Formats: sequence, C-alpha cells, structure tokens
Amino acid sequence: MKALCFNGPRDIDYSSVPDPRVEDDDDIIVSMKACSICGSDLHIYHGHGYTTDTGYCVGHEAVGEVVEIGRGVRRHKIGDQVMLSGAVGCGACARCVAGDSRNCLNNRQQVYGVGIGLQGCQAEAIRVPAADFNAALIPEGLDEVQALMLTDSLPTAWFGAKNADIRPGASVAVVGLGPIGLMAVECAFLLGASRVFAIDPIAERQTVATSLGAVALAPDEAIETVRELTHGVMADSAIEVAGSELSVKLAMKLVRRSGTVSAIGGSGIGRFDFPWRGAFSRGLTLRMGTCSVAAHWPELIPLVQQRRLRPERFVTHSTSLADGAEAYRVFDGRLEGALKVVMRP
Amino acid sequence: MKALCFNGPRDIDYSSVPDPRVEDDDDIIVSMKACSICGSDLHIYHGHGYTTDTGYCVGHEAVGEVVEIGRGVRRHKIGDQVMLSGAVGCGACARCVAGDSRNCLNNRQQVYGVGIGLQGCQAEAIRVPAADFNAALIPEGLDEVQALMLTDSLPTAWFGAKNADIRPGASVAVVGLGPIGLMAVECAFLLGASRVFAIDPIAERQTVATSLGAVALAPDEAIETVRELTHGVMADSAIEVAGSELSVKLAMKLVRRSGTVSAIGGSGIGRFDFPWRGAFSRGLTLRMGTCSVAAHWPELIPLVQQRRLRPERFVTHSTSLADGAEAYRVFDGRLEGALKVVMRP
Amino acid sequence: MKALCFNGPRDIDYSSVPDPRVEDDDDIIVSMKACSICGSDLHIYHGHGYTTDTGYCVGHEAVGEVVEIGRGVRRHKIGDQVMLSGAVGCGACARCVAGDSRNCLNNRQQVYGVGIGLQGCQAEAIRVPAADFNAALIPEGLDEVQALMLTDSLPTAWFGAKNADIRPGASVAVVGLGPIGLMAVECAFLLGASRVFAIDPIAERQTVATSLGAVALAPDEAIETVRELTHGVMADSAIEVAGSELSVKLAMKLVRRSGTVSAIGGSGIGRFDFPWRGAFSRGLTLRMGTCSVAAHWPELIPLVQQRRLRPERFVTHSTSLADGAEAYRVFDGRLEGALKVVMRP
Amino acid sequence: MKALCFNGPRDIDYSSVPDPRVEDDDDIIVSMKACSICGSDLHIYHGHGYTTDTGYCVGHEAVGEVVEIGRGVRRHKIGDQVMLSGAVGCGACARCVAGDSRNCLNNRQQVYGVGIGLQGCQAEAIRVPAADFNAALIPEGLDEVQALMLTDSLPTAWFGAKNADIRPGASVAVVGLGPIGLMAVECAFLLGASRVFAIDPIAERQTVATSLGAVALAPDEAIETVRELTHGVMADSAIEVAGSELSVKLAMKLVRRSGTVSAIGGSGIGRFDFPWRGAFSRGLTLRMGTCSVAAHWPELIPLVQQRRLRPERFVTHSTSLADGAEAYRVFDGRLEGALKVVMRP
Repeated sequence: MKALCFNGPRDIDYSSVPDPRVEDDDDIIVSMKACSICGSDLHIYHGHGYTTDTGYCVGHEAVGEVVEIGRGVRRHKIGDQVMLSGAVGCGACARCVAGDSRNCLNNRQQVYGVGIGLQGCQAEAIRVPAADFNAALIPEGLDEVQALMLTDSLPTAWFGAKNADIRPGASVAVVGLGPIGLMAVECAFLLGASRVFAIDPIAERQTVATSLGAVALAPDEAIETVRELTHGVMADSAIEVAGSELSVKLAMKLVRRSGTVSAIGGSGIGRFDFPWRGAFSRGLTLRMGTCSVAAHWPELIPLVQQRRLRPERFVTHSTSLADGAEAYRVFDGRLEGALKVVMRP
Repeated sequence: MKALCFNGPRDIDYSSVPDPRVEDDDDIIVSMKACSICGSDLHIYHGHGYTTDTGYCVGHEAVGEVVEIGRGVRRHKIGDQVMLSGAVGCGACARCVAGDSRNCLNNRQQVYGVGIGLQGCQAEAIRVPAADFNAALIPEGLDEVQALMLTDSLPTAWFGAKNADIRPGASVAVVGLGPIGLMAVECAFLLGASRVFAIDPIAERQTVATSLGAVALAPDEAIETVRELTHGVMADSAIEVAGSELSVKLAMKLVRRSGTVSAIGGSGIGRFDFPWRGAFSRGLTLRMGTCSVAAHWPELIPLVQQRRLRPERFVTHSTSLADGAEAYRVFDGRLEGALKVVMRP
Repeated sequence: MKALCFNGPRDIDYSSVPDPRVEDDDDIIVSMKACSICGSDLHIYHGHGYTTDTGYCVGHEAVGEVVEIGRGVRRHKIGDQVMLSGAVGCGACARCVAGDSRNCLNNRQQVYGVGIGLQGCQAEAIRVPAADFNAALIPEGLDEVQALMLTDSLPTAWFGAKNADIRPGASVAVVGLGPIGLMAVECAFLLGASRVFAIDPIAERQTVATSLGAVALAPDEAIETVRELTHGVMADSAIEVAGSELSVKLAMKLVRRSGTVSAIGGSGIGRFDFPWRGAFSRGLTLRMGTCSVAAHWPELIPLVQQRRLRPERFVTHSTSLADGAEAYRVFDGRLEGALKVVMRP
Repeated sequence: MKALCFNGPRDIDYSSVPDPRVEDDDDIIVSMKACSICGSDLHIYHGHGYTTDTGYCVGHEAVGEVVEIGRGVRRHKIGDQVMLSGAVGCGACARCVAGDSRNCLNNRQQVYGVGIGLQGCQAEAIRVPAADFNAALIPEGLDEVQALMLTDSLPTAWFGAKNADIRPGASVAVVGLGPIGLMAVECAFLLGASRVFAIDPIAERQTVATSLGAVALAPDEAIETVRELTHGVMADSAIEVAGSELSVKLAMKLVRRSGTVSAIGGSGIGRFDFPWRGAFSRGLTLRMGTCSVAAHWPELIPLVQQRRLRPERFVTHSTSLADGAEAYRVFDGRLEGALKVVMRP
C-alpha cells in the first residue's frame, strides 16, 4: 500500500510500504477514508521525533472502514465506519477499559506513527490493536471530518480546557491559535468562560478567534491588555497550546493569584527554567500533558452532534494523501491560512 | 409615598403608605428606579400568600439609588446605584457574609413584600436591612434592567440549573417557560448542555425557547418525544419551574435512571403524593428550594457583563408603578405575550 | 445441586435445584464458597418480593471459584477466586463497561435471586452472565469474607454515604443500624464527617455504633438531641437505611436547611406522602436508589486492603447453607445480636 | 513591651519595643497568650527573609485576649479570647470577606513579622488590622494550643492535602515530617487516603509518622519502596513540605502518571530547574503556594472540636517568650525531638 513516510527533516514522501495485517486476535485493519496532520507531527517533520530512525509511516489521526477483524474482536464487524483514538492503550486494564488509555496500568500506552511500535495513520490502511477499545463506530449524525476531529485535536483542546479549572464566568487566556488553540477557545466558552483572551502573533488566526467571540491579542500586548481589561486581577486560567518555554511563561504571567495554567502543547519542550518564586508566591497550579482521547468522547460526541462544538470549521485544506508532502509544507509554513489539513486516499 | 399594595385576591392597588425610614444602624433607604413582578408574587395575587393580612406592600425585585444611610453602613454612600438581593439575610453570620442568606445561621432569612416583616419593593422607596450585605453596587457596564434581573430571576434560574447536575454534553428538560424558565434554558446551555427540551403549553413561549436553541415541546408530547430523541434513555436532568405537582411529576418522568430533577418553582405546592417506588428504582435525585441571590453574583455578573447571558431579552413590558394593577393583570393572564414586566416610579 | 429457595412468606428451605450451566458464551459458573443474607432478601422472605412465583433460589451476595467458562470469556479462567457484583449489567454498553451497571444503556440491569431472570447466589453454584464485567478476582490481601462484603453491602453503604454530599467536617445522621447502616457510619467518617449521629431503637446496635465513634441515639430522642448538639442547625446530611416512610421522614427532619438526605433502604416503600412545603422551604436534596456495585470497587478495594474500612467486623454469624432457614429466622428476628450472616456450602 | 526581634542571622533576642496601638478604626490590640514558631520563621532566622532590615519583631502564629478595639470593629469586644489568621487581608474585598485573604482583590495580603508592614506576633501584644476578618473567637471547646494550631500550621497542612487531589482510597506521599508534614499525614488520612508514605531522614520523625498509621520511609529508599508497594504504579499524590528543590523533585518522582504534587513548603526556593519532559509525558499537576488561613476554618474547626484532627499532639516544647532565642535554636536544630514549639509571655 501507499503511505506518508518520514525520511529526514522536512522530508516526508508518499511511498510504498507493506500492507498491515492482523497480528493479534484483538486487531482490526481499517481502510483509511480521511486522516489529518497534527501539530505534534511537526516535531517529527522538523527532525525532533522520538527516534533517529527514518522510513517509518507517520500520522495518528484517522477515520476509515473496517476491512479485516481478528478473532477476538467483539464490537466491530467488516464494513463498520470507525474513528480511531489517537491515544492507544492495552484495552484490558481497568483504566483503558474506562477510556483512560494514557494511564494504562500495563504501561502499554502507544501512539501511531512515531517510529516506535505502531505504524502511522497517514496510510491507505491501518492496523488497530485492542480494537474494541481503540476504535469506535462513527457516531450517528457525524460526518467523516467531524469524526476525524474527535480522534485527537478536539479531545486535546477539551482536555486542555478542562484542566484549566474553568468555572462559569471565568476569564481564560489561550496562548497559541493553531487548530487546537482555536478549538480550546471554543471549549473554554462551552465550559462557561465569560471572556477568552486569544493570543497569537498571526493576524489571520486572531481574526478567526475574534469570530469565535474572543478578545484576540498579539503576544507582546497580551499582558498589559489583560491587566487592563481585568482591572489588574489577570485571567483566572490559561491554556497553553503553542508549546514553547516562552509561551508557557507567558501563560504563567497571564493568570491571577491562585490561577491555573494548563499546558497541552509542550511535548517538545526540553528542560524548563521554572520561575518558582513568583509562581509559589502567587499560588499557581500547573497542569500538563496529553489526553486519553476516548475518555472524552461521552461528553464531546453529543456536543458535536448538537453543533455546540464545531471543530470542522477549522479545516482549511483538503487534499489527497498522494500530495501529503505539499500538505506538510503548507501546514508547517502556516501558508494560505492553513489550520487543519485533511487528506484522503 | 406611593406603593403597590395587596388588598385581596386579584386586587392590587397603587396607594399611599408611610415613607420608610432608617430603623437600624445597618439600614439604607433606596429610592426605587425599577422593579419587576415575579411569578411568586402571583401566589399572593391569587390569595395564597403567607398571611391572611391585607394592605401590605408587595414585590421583592428592585434597583435604585441610595438616599439615606444608617450610621453602621460601610459599603454604601448616598447616591450609589444599587441592586437589592431578593433573599435577605442577617448579614452577620458566616453564611450571610459569604452570600448564602437562605441558610442564615441566625434564622433571619427574609423576603420583601410578603406581608411579614419587610415591606415590598414595588414602592417609591425601600428600607434595606443589613445593607452592606443585602445591597450591592450595580456592576460596571450593566444597565438598570440587567441589574434588576440579577435581583432574583436570573439567580433563581441559575440556581435551578446548577442544582440539576448538568455536565457538559448533557440533555436537560426545562418544564415551564415563563421568564425564569426561559432563563433556565439559557443557563442550561451556558453550563454545557448539548440539548435542552423546553416544555410549555403556550405556543408563543415555545417560539422564544426555539430561538434560544432549545427543542420546544408541549407537555403532552414531551415524554414521547424526549424518549425518541434520546433513543430511550431520557434526559440527564430536568429543571422544574412551573410549580405544580403535575409538572414536578412530569419532570421526574423526563429524566433517565440516576437523573436529577431540580425544582425551583414549587413554593406553592402543598403536600405531594411522591411516586416513591419508581423514583427509588430509577435512582433519582430531587433538589428543591429557592436561592441565596447574592451567592450567585460572582459567577453571574461577568456572564451578563460579557453578554453570555442576556436575561434582559425576556422583558416584554415596561410600565409605570402607578399602572401596577394592570401590569399584574397582564402578567397573571399571560396576555400580550407577557414575560417579564418592569415598572418604574 | 442444593440451594436456598423461597416457598412462601417466612418459608425458605434448602432444596435440590438443577445445576446451572453455561448458557451464553459470556457466562461462567462459579462454585460458591461464601454467601450472605441482605436486608433486601427479607422483603422476599416477608412475601413482598418482585413476583408472586415461589420455588426460586434466592440471594445476591457471593464469592466463589470459577469452575466452568464460556468461550467468549476473557478475563477469567478455571480456578480463579472471584467476587460477584450484586448489580448485574449487560457488560457491553459504555456504562456497564465503566462499572455503572445500574444505568445499563441496554436496560439489562438484573439482580440474582429475585425470581425474575437469574437464579440466586445462596446456592452451591451460580451462573454469572457477562462474567468479564460481573465478576472480578478477589483482590490481593482480602479474605473471602472481606470480598463478600464487597459484593453488595459495603458498596451500598458507600454509595449511600457518597450520595449524602458529605464534606470534611460535616455532621451526618445515619438512620437504621443494621449491617449496612453500621458500614454507612464507617463510610461517613472515612469521607471526613466530624460527627455521626447513629440512630436505631435496638440498644445493642447503638453500642456497636458507639464503638465506631458515633453518637448513638434512639429514634424518639434523635431530633431533640441533634438540635441541641448542633446548636439548632441540625445535621448537614442524613443517610437513610431503615427503609420505611417513617424513617425517611425522620431523616428529612434531621437535616439542616440545604441539607441532603440519601435514601438507600427504601426499595420496599410504596407510595410516599411527601412533606413538600417544608422540604421546599428548607431547600432539601433527596437522593435515592441502589448502587452499581463494581463502580465503587476502585475506591473501596484499597480502603479494605489497608484496613481503613473493616466491614468484616459486622459479621456476627457464620453457618452452613444447609442451615439457611434458621439463618433467615435469626437475621429477620434480629436475634442473638445478628448483624451480617454468612453461609458456606 | 517585650518581643522577639531579629537582629541578624541566627540572632533573635527578647527586646523592648514600642507598645502597639490602634492605628485604624478597624484595628484591635491583642494581648498575646500563646504563640509559636513556624518553619517559615526559620528563613528569616537564617538570614533569608524578605528584607535586609533588622530589628523587627517576628512571628505570625498567636492567640490572645482583646484589650483594645477601634471604633469600627463590630465583631469583637474587650476580653474576647481570639485566634489570629496568619494570612492577613484587607477584610473589605469580596475574597477577604469570604476568608480568602491570599487572593485579596486589593492586593493587601500581608503577613505579621516579616519586617514589612505588620509587626510580629511573638510579642506581648499585637496590632490586628481589619480585625473583624483577621481575628476570630476561639471556638467552643478548643483550648489555647488547639486554637494556636489553627492560626497557620494546620490550615497550611490542610491546604496542602486538599491541593493534592486526594480521592478516597488514594495513596499519598508526604515529603518532610516537621509539624506541618505530620499534620499533612493526618489530613491525608482524613481526606480518605488508604495509605500514606511519610518521608523524612530523621528516625524520630519517622516514628511519629508510623504512630499515625503511615508507612515511614527515608528519602533514599522512598522511590523504590513506593514503586514496590504500589506494584509499579507509584502514589496518586504527593504533598511536599520540606521546601527544597530536591524534595520537590523527589515528590514529582513519587507520583504516578496523571498524579498531583502539592508543594506547600517551597517559599524559600529560588529558581527551579524543572524536569519538563518527564513531567509533561507523565501528565503531572503541580500546585503550590501558601494558604488563606480563615478560608479553612469552617471545615477544620469541627474536625478539631470532635478530635478527628489532633494537631496539638505535635507540640513538643512549651516555654516562655523570654526564652525565645533558645526556642529558636532548639527548633532550628531539630534538637530534643523538637516539632512544634509554643511560647507564652
């Protein structure tokens, strides 16, 4: 089959790789119908992935059709239209069974397409392990693109917003307005924020944030403006999506005493010179990490079904898998107003 | 001064009464600028009030200007524009200090205008006891009508919605679509409901609910439609506003196993033939009561300031206090599409 | 095999019944090693069960050894020592998978031994449906009796205590001091209660409650004493275990304004004359129902393992299944200080 | 009057200072009856305080008798026995009124005895600003020492434990077993922990922790032992009390994926080399800071009254204020098994 493979920094190509096959009784094989590029795929693209190997297939966001099933699979049958959880777990321990695959008690949490273990989803077909838990029927009323947003981006934004301790009426800063940041703006409002300060240097992304009801700000004006608009109190919470030491520190400055910073973008940060004294004297909370995708589905599915969350709005580009190299270039370069890029076989 | 007084069933008139004066050091006198009629005022109007006395001044929702202050008052000065909490407390116990006047530890919770204790607010001037706690400056950016909605109706709707255990993505039924019911629809969405079933026999009120994004239903079709739309599960929560035994029972039927019914309209219900066996086997939660108005202000004020809640939309009639008798007739009769009726001196 | 069967009011006998066998691929057969009598078994014993049929095998609390497994079972093997959830679910829907079998989305929640569907557990062997979800290995470090308490009684007491909205420092009334009531006293303290008022007419049960640190009271003195000890405020919460209309009403009187009554004993109450006016004006919350046993295991298992909860203390009688008729007579009559009665084959 | 004053590193003496007097209408003057030394006083003692000035009076934990009152004080009268909140606020803003003085909206949070603003409490008399909010009557049934523990130490331990997201059944590590650490062990159990790992290098402090029911460990064995006892999962939460970069990092290693570290001892840490990559990949939450003392009184007072928390157990030394220099030397050196040291005039 054909798939997008990583050959070295900024070198992704559309190559032939072996077809996936059922390896364990719990596996299914899914014929990909739509996949997308995540901001974290860019770490690999930039040459800062989890392995120095090359040649592996990339991507962890996909929906498709079940074309083969292992003997132990009970919830799927051939022909099912499914969405895959971007966070893969063992499916057997109590936490995975409850959807919380990031905290797999067997330490078997995995991600597709990082060069270790599972092959990527930006491919014509995908092997899904422990498929009863790591894949789910596309919910009634959702189209492929909406379901695709549920495989990683929207749950990540949601997790970021929920980690931010948002209470009704709160003010929330969102730092970084890529697709997940914009979805985090949506999620913050959904959780009852009265006001969202949306921060990004790119004017075009600010415009989108404004259309969502946020107060859009450039990073260099953010602290002063938030101080002014909150009469010196600062924001109740911040969601950090941009993923740099600088942006985490900005988020920490944007919140009030006893405020919470929720960092979801920082998988690429190495060590971090933490401003302890100020953080301690202001009594901050810092939450960080990536999400157990499926754990959030029970809340998110009805919200997308009823159109209270519309993550599909942030899909700006739709192309074929064969043109994946170009898709990466555009998304990486934030060219043509690119936010979420979807590819089909 | 002049005020609206209760003279007997369906007999409210605009009469002369003695001017209020500072009685305790903690009192202020407020010159009324706007007041409104609450659904619970209709119990009195119908002759089912808390006392058989007549001649007392009615009403408990008002905003105005401070015109006199007792020596012990510290947070107000003459000329302040203030909103009054419809739920009055002693202002000295730990619970009142924290805004939770309904649970006054000194058992001095009171309501204006029920013929016991405090005179009503549908008057040219009002005596406010423990004024540091029972009155607050009208928040920056709010007009008189928005502030007026914060004195009772909106906090009551909010309390009803918060009592309903609404989790993001939940489905919520609201039974009764007077002004508080419509605000409860708004509040349920604000708290993350994916879907609100709004139930009332009056077509015009259904239309308003539909404009808020709800699925509007007549009472006699509600159970079947909710069952169908939830694939047999029923709603996660119900907010009961209509205030009859029948409507509470309808709310109980509308919720799923382990669902919550929040009853805020039932101050006029006497005894209640509770369907225990079904409620127990389905594991229901039932919450009821009226709210500590000021306890909800910290959440509600920014939500109204930022226009995420717009309770002023439900004001349909604006008239003078002198025409109060007619205002009562219209509101009671649900004439002319009446929802919230505001009166000014 | 032999089992305890219901033949009519107060007539339970030890009879021969057909051996259970694997009927569905998900089933296991468990050879019973210990079972116990629940307060709710007495409804059947008194002739107030769910069916007018007789001759069925009773009981829903048991631990044992897996002796046969269906082809679809994945988490159990022959020889496993298991505890059975007293609340049986389909094991396939999202809620059952998460342990919340009472809210089975397929409406297939069941109970053993009520004459409808599943046979009882007071038998030499038991068929367990959807066994991957309805049975679990006896946790490390627990003996048979501790595990047996986890099949129903302790989770029910825990559910009752959690439903009571107990905050650290709270005062809690427990009405009814059978085994579940005494466990509820333990659970209320575990959840941070500063003071527990334990109410029962039987002096011997009061003595046990006192030994747990509670203030033991007879029903007729409870209201006055609680009023006095709380300086007129009354208890923050009440857990109603006794299961009569009278005891629910007592619980309602024992709580303060905005207090919570959690009713877990009321499965046998028919209609209920609810004192609405007082409950509404005091702003009460009423929660009721029975529990999803397995949903509480993740919290309860470590608490029993570390001896912070010691439900085995309330086992007063241990006998053979063959003497079950006598065991019922003793438990029903509260003879010989009987609390929990355990039977073995 | 006489007071303990800081003259330079390790140089505290008992000197004459001017008598305090009512400066604002809201002030009271309290004649000190008992005061105590806090671990944070040692920062000053070591010469790492908030100012390079010397000669100021130290201490922020005290109880005493009201001997003078300003004209605006309403809740106190001469002769009242009061406890002082170690965290002082303006007493006028909404947060201070609710007890949350650390988040004073007027930015007037203060501490006694740090050389900036308020004089210390280790003195014969103390000026208390905004006394209606910063002092409270000693609650019924509590003795002076119990009340003294409520002025800072116990609320700090409680805040640390509450910040640790302890759920019933959780395992909790406490790093540092000075008086606050030992109280944190107590508080963790009160909040439902099934198991507490108590970590300190001093054998004698380990012995006290063991007597509280904890598993006591030395720092160098902690990680391995916790790993073994939790079957590789690690603790659910950690409370860091020791207050060094090293101990915060140890706490971070002791918690499981998605675990929470609550740091309450770190006011003396400067910059902090944060191990971001590991923390992010494990999805940690880090909470830090000092507490709003009075905000915790409603929960703590009944727990101390009912003897569910017994902080007075950790008072090992009782001496006169005149011997304060020696008291500091003993407490600082952890001599003679010193935990909490109480001084009286």
